[in-house]
Amino acid sequence: MPYSDMDPRYKFAASLLSKRWTLLIIRILLGGKKRFSEFKLQIPQVSDRLLSERLQELEEQGILLRTVQPTKPVLIEYELSARGIALEPVVEAVQNWGEIWVE
Amino acid sequence: MPYSDMDPRYKFAASLLSKRWTLLIIRILLGGKKRFSEFKLQIPQVSDRLLSERLQELEEQGILLRTVQPTKPVLIEYELSARGIALEPVVEAVQNWGEIWVE
Repeated sequence: MPYSDMDPRYKFAASLLSKRWTLLIIRILLGGKKRFSEFKLQIPQVSDRLLSERLQELEEQGILLRTVQPTKPVLIEYELSARGIALEPVVEAVQNWGEIWVE
Repeated sequence: MPYSDMDPRYKFAASLLSKRWTLLIIRILLGGKKRFSEFKLQIPQVSDRLLSERLQELEEQGILLRTVQPTKPVLIEYELSARGIALEPVVEAVQNWGEIWVE
């Protein structure tokens, strides 16, 4: 890969992924459809406000889909779109690096 | 990979990589040793202050090495350590995703 010029597509992808919690949210969603409270089980320290904000951004970016089941109370679920599932190699590369280089 | 539990090593790696500009700095350094001004050619919008801060953090994390040549004026250069070079698969995965999913 030529690293002598910055590819604007890389820059865009990097700015999307470098929002705080985004790489964690995507990893969690690779495990399947999730409810809001299920994210909090894996990342308890994120505030509700920030988690909502991130999920909304990722929905706007077409990374995830939000579905509302008209039950009582309504059931809101999040899952990765094809564009989001395509991020699995990024998550795997981060995981592999972590396993070797993080104590 | 089991996605039902968050791996603390993944969490650490993700928090390191999700600082703004970090994924760009690492990509630039995969092209070889760089001086401060050379980063600015590829990411002109980053401020000197923030770029210095990021480079220092990455040095403290053992991702890059900073060398000072005792010339006049001194020549300061940055290059990836083994721990930093090991991030190439992450950069490649982000690049590949960008090529397919970013217009």
